[in-house]
Amino acid sequence: MVSVRPNPAEAAPAPPAPAEGARPHAKPWPRYERAALGLRNYWYPALPSSQVRGKPVGFTILGEELVLVRRDGQVYCLEGRCRHRGVPLAAGRFQFPCTISCAYHGWTYDLASGELVAALTDGPESSIVGKVRLRTYPAQERQGIIWVFVGDDAPPPLEADVPPEFLDPESTVAVRVKEFPGNWRLAIEGSLDPSHAFFLHRFAWMNAFSRMPAARTYYEPETIDERYVGYKGNRPLPEAEYPRVGRWPPRLWWRRFGRTGSTKVIGWLPGAARVEGNLGSQATVYSWYVPVDKDNYRWFQILWTRSRGLGRVGFWLKYYGWWYWLYQRQFLGQDAGINGLMHPYYAEQDGWARERLYRPDVVITHWRKFVDQYARGIQEK
Amino acid sequence: MVSVRPNPAEAAPAPPAPAEGARPHAKPWPRYERAALGLRNYWYPALPSSQVRGKPVGFTILGEELVLVRRDGQVYCLEGRCRHRGVPLAAGRFQFPCTISCAYHGWTYDLASGELVAALTDGPESSIVGKVRLRTYPAQERQGIIWVFVGDDAPPPLEADVPPEFLDPESTVAVRVKEFPGNWRLAIEGSLDPSHAFFLHRFAWMNAFSRMPAARTYYEPETIDERYVGYKGNRPLPEAEYPRVGRWPPRLWWRRFGRTGSTKVIGWLPGAARVEGNLGSQATVYSWYVPVDKDNYRWFQILWTRSRGLGRVGFWLKYYGWWYWLYQRQFLGQDAGINGLMHPYYAEQDGWARERLYRPDVVITHWRKFVDQYARGIQEK
Amino acid sequence: MVSVRPNPAEAAPAPPAPAEGARPHAKPWPRYERAALGLRNYWYPALPSSQVRGKPVGFTILGEELVLVRRDGQVYCLEGRCRHRGVPLAAGRFQFPCTISCAYHGWTYDLASGELVAALTDGPESSIVGKVRLRTYPAQERQGIIWVFVGDDAPPPLEADVPPEFLDPESTVAVRVKEFPGNWRLAIEGSLDPSHAFFLHRFAWMNAFSRMPAARTYYEPETIDERYVGYKGNRPLPEAEYPRVGRWPPRLWWRRFGRTGSTKVIGWLPGAARVEGNLGSQATVYSWYVPVDKDNYRWFQILWTRSRGLGRVGFWLKYYGWWYWLYQRQFLGQDAGINGLMHPYYAEQDGWARERLYRPDVVITHWRKFVDQYARGIQEK
Repeated sequence: MVSVRPNPAEAAPAPPAPAEGARPHAKPWPRYERAALGLRNYWYPALPSSQVRGKPVGFTILGEELVLVRRDGQVYCLEGRCRHRGVPLAAGRFQFPCTISCAYHGWTYDLASGELVAALTDGPESSIVGKVRLRTYPAQERQGIIWVFVGDDAPPPLEADVPPEFLDPESTVAVRVKEFPGNWRLAIEGSLDPSHAFFLHRFAWMNAFSRMPAARTYYEPETIDERYVGYKGNRPLPEAEYPRVGRWPPRLWWRRFGRTGSTKVIGWLPGAARVEGNLGSQATVYSWYVPVDKDNYRWFQILWTRSRGLGRVGFWLKYYGWWYWLYQRQFLGQDAGINGLMHPYYAEQDGWARERLYRPDVVITHWRKFVDQYARGIQEK
Repeated sequence: MVSVRPNPAEAAPAPPAPAEGARPHAKPWPRYERAALGLRNYWYPALPSSQVRGKPVGFTILGEELVLVRRDGQVYCLEGRCRHRGVPLAAGRFQFPCTISCAYHGWTYDLASGELVAALTDGPESSIVGKVRLRTYPAQERQGIIWVFVGDDAPPPLEADVPPEFLDPESTVAVRVKEFPGNWRLAIEGSLDPSHAFFLHRFAWMNAFSRMPAARTYYEPETIDERYVGYKGNRPLPEAEYPRVGRWPPRLWWRRFGRTGSTKVIGWLPGAARVEGNLGSQATVYSWYVPVDKDNYRWFQILWTRSRGLGRVGFWLKYYGWWYWLYQRQFLGQDAGINGLMHPYYAEQDGWARERLYRPDVVITHWRKFVDQYARGIQEK
Repeated sequence: MVSVRPNPAEAAPAPPAPAEGARPHAKPWPRYERAALGLRNYWYPALPSSQVRGKPVGFTILGEELVLVRRDGQVYCLEGRCRHRGVPLAAGRFQFPCTISCAYHGWTYDLASGELVAALTDGPESSIVGKVRLRTYPAQERQGIIWVFVGDDAPPPLEADVPPEFLDPESTVAVRVKEFPGNWRLAIEGSLDPSHAFFLHRFAWMNAFSRMPAARTYYEPETIDERYVGYKGNRPLPEAEYPRVGRWPPRLWWRRFGRTGSTKVIGWLPGAARVEGNLGSQATVYSWYVPVDKDNYRWFQILWTRSRGLGRVGFWLKYYGWWYWLYQRQFLGQDAGINGLMHPYYAEQDGWARERLYRPDVVITHWRKFVDQYARGIQEK
């Protein structure tokens, strides 16, 4: 396993003394505040394998336009526009094995190296050949997903950026990918947020008949192995007498089923989370929140199981009969909706300075400091 | 009745000497030119009562996001986003009488005071309680409309900002509310504009069979009681011989009905007008042009009558059979259309400096100076 | 014929020495780089005649809003907004011969001179009359197209800005006009571009059964009569062995028809091109790329023939049965698609500096220098 350490040149062990004239709110996560476009030097899930078939596919990640190509079973990722006149290579054509030709004038790039190997319309002795090279992005296909490394450093193995069990070839995954409005940081923070489940998801259909607890009064965030953040907490209060408003939550006769066990959430860089317990012991949920640009993220909602044989049949039956609708679309849709509603507050109304945090948000500030300290790089505009 | 005086700190009795380098067009209404977002410290119609029922309703006014809530018959208006993470309270839920709880984490605010009275998911001893307060906006419900005071001063009674007869509880009102593109100042100016009726509305269906006069050659604007602007004029010319183009308007055999009486228009702050005579003696028309933001306004088109008994039946028959279609939608729709067409000229093409005014516009410049002198406050960005 | 010389005040015979701090890429066509909104002091095709019938028509050209009016068979072009309050004259009404009246207050302008000849609602003695004048634009109707001169100089005859044979009254034209996203410079460059036909249009349906050559290795651009750019080239290679990728193009059994003759392309100011040979000897193709604003152009796609009698019947049969679909819509649609895809690269991603040109682009750089030297004027924002 590769150890993931902060980039010494970038990571600031102690927050710098505020400059004169600094905004009074300055928070101890300056790199995080700058990271609207995401973090560099990580493996990201780019697209589900099923979306990259016979034709080149353009997509945007961390504000960069790239193209994904599958040729002879191999997947390649390159800078998305031809260097000649900027035409997107997603409109390109395949004329030779292992090359792509720009749709406009047939500039032909080697898929593996990005090198311009022919300018077809300029004849075989074209002098531009060999003088131009597209940037290439390391890409691989695992668990039905195409992963791309966005950065400048030599890429670590994918295992360094993913919890190790996730890549187990014996496991089964159900992947739903959808782009949502909002900044990626709001999305990952919402995934780690330990207290919204007691309120926002109380009203999810999946929880309609569950006795939902009221609150939890103590959280202890933790950093695990310098790779993950998580938290522990005390036992939730089933109900409570609130001094200014009274007893809560109301006892409703149809809320009669206890929640099975508790959930365990961990988060890691560059912006992903694993939730155990939400779907019982039958499936673990992985989420990657991939920055498209500063105003949109692509959410990989992945249900993962080790079930085999009949258990696997049961997994897919539950997935299409139940989880896809009630969990991925409705339950997680509540989170996506909130992220979109919050976004203008943070993006246009100085929300990073104006927000008022409360006790459970220690988990979120722990995440912010964790990113600030360990992020390999910030994607600058 | 409350006397409405200019805010001494803001109102400049004499226009200041132009600074060196000032734009050469500088007009004697500098505060008016700055008031793209509207005027502060006034009562505004916010929404029709019928739009605020069981659920909280978010709306924007003078560029501010607010929320309106009806609970147990009482209407409340508050700042529209939770102070925690900025989620709109319009997505909130009711968990107790007289409170609203943010959809995300259940931060619970007292509707009357705006105070945070519980952070449900943080348990009954949450220390954030009592430390956060949403801004509240005085609100009341009169004549089927929810009125909100947007400002910093102590609010005067609603009667100070509305012609007194309008609130007569014996009267009947038909309210149509619709948002249109354009700045609110173009809309109220269009309502006071004394000459466009001779041309723009000549082609309204309501006037299809009316002999419309050609022009009026003299206007005398007036300030009434320091509260209203109005104007007098000479008798309109039924037709005239124009030196460079000839006789006008054409005599059309189907235009054979005289206009019944003349109309009387007054305007007042923060941007409203009353028209008598347009619908004969049977209904008076009130319009409020409420800034949503600098590019849109919400137009309250209100038909008002004192009729009782059978007269009231007649009012509603005429309203739904005739006035709603021919007056509110088509006739006033001509004004709304013009406002939208003019808006880019003023907002993007320096129209405030480039406009060329003519004799009837003395009524409009009178209004501009009136606002400049008396407006209680300007909504700054 | 009018000789078209550069405006001495604007044309810089030698590129200026780069200022300190100048962008290192500075190219020898600085005026061309500034000409995002187009060139001034030229005749442009404004709209097809068929679009200007009974009502005034507003349109935008070189970022200016204008209005076209047909009255009693005569076509007039004026500044598009009333000087009073900026209402578009496209919403205006006709009240007298040879005038247009603004929809709002009936300000009435003479169509020929632009002079305000009556302010109807201000009566026959209105003092504003004669003090206001709309800018007028010389306009004429030729070949089913309304032409407008956009500029400050006295306009030359239309013949100065159009190849002389085009206006032959004996000729027949089929005009398709459509607005596309993209800057006009990319569009005209694409029309002159000599090499894209070997690749982009290889995949046009019209060429599906043609043996398309691979490349051409030599181009010699030329300036003809100081009015046109064109180029000569060597004989295309039917196929070739490319050192790094192999033989190309593939020999496909269904590509068996030779291309009939070769094409000849010329371009001229302010951004138009003529293509001979694309449709055999039966029709010549003229294209004007008219800037709407910096992000859109209006493409006049014109098929032109001298055929008479039965030949003309044949022209229209081929046009509606074949050329309209396969040439104007699909073949030229490939160019329009590429222009739209390239546009963000040039408009937002510094493409003018980042582009990497290759040998055939000598024709394009020749065009850029030609424009830079001879353009009568640049449309500044």
